[in-house]
Amino acid sequence: METQELLLLQNARFYEAFEHADMEAMASVWAHDEHVRCIHPGWAAATGWEAVRAGWEAVFAGGAALRFSLRNVRGRVFDRVGVVFLREEIVFTGDTVRQTVGTETTNVFLFDGGEWRMVLHHASPVVAVDAGDLTYRFN
Amino acid sequence: METQELLLLQNARFYEAFEHADMEAMASVWAHDEHVRCIHPGWAAATGWEAVRAGWEAVFAGGAALRFSLRNVRGRVFDRVGVVFLREEIVFTGDTVRQTVGTETTNVFLFDGGEWRMVLHHASPVVAVDAGDLTYRFN
Repeated sequence: METQELLLLQNARFYEAFEHADMEAMASVWAHDEHVRCIHPGWAAATGWEAVRAGWEAVFAGGAALRFSLRNVRGRVFDRVGVVFLREEIVFTGDTVRQTVGTETTNVFLFDGGEWRMVLHHASPVVAVDAGDLTYRFN
Repeated sequence: METQELLLLQNARFYEAFEHADMEAMASVWAHDEHVRCIHPGWAAATGWEAVRAGWEAVFAGGAALRFSLRNVRGRVFDRVGVVFLREEIVFTGDTVRQTVGTETTNVFLFDGGEWRMVLHHASPVVAVDAGDLTYRFN
């Protein structure tokens, strides 16, 4: 397969692990070094694999059922760096709540040892869902 | 100068243009192609230089005085791709409001023609400012 296809496949594996709350699969997607970085919507950044793993464990321990629809997925490959941009639409079902939320997400992977390993997941909440709504809001 | 130093210098120029609401300086920091991407806190993503420029014009037209403090700035260079991670602490002064907000930010630059040009600015609001607060919240 082309590296671009492999990149999008690895990105898909990331969301599969996320939906299934599968820590082992999630760990296999990531690089495990002190530089990797993960930003869940609204959270402070976690840096380094130990902190990133702890964040995933907290997410998965929450027990919410998450179902992702990925929109406008765009992959760009620059030599050994792969960047995937997308909009996540997440149906989030908890004990007492069911809501659909949107994020803008940047995922970065490094091609190393014949495979793409995630080094950044940056997901941020979209307050202004309509792309035409350009009011500058912080919240 | 080393490419790493040039990367951090270009990142600093970006924030200088932002603080001064200087569209010309902001335009000179960015690559101008259909792939560049900009996500202001809470906004939908803008893709392509025309949309990115329109977003900056909307931000600057807002007329708010912004003062940035940058924390935990980390630059990584992968060949011609430069990634800068940081926390923005922004003092935001409008007509009727003054607030300090925090973001987690990922800035990506491409080294092209002897200089780093921005291809991604992804700034997301931090709801849980305390890095120890791992409650998973979307909002």
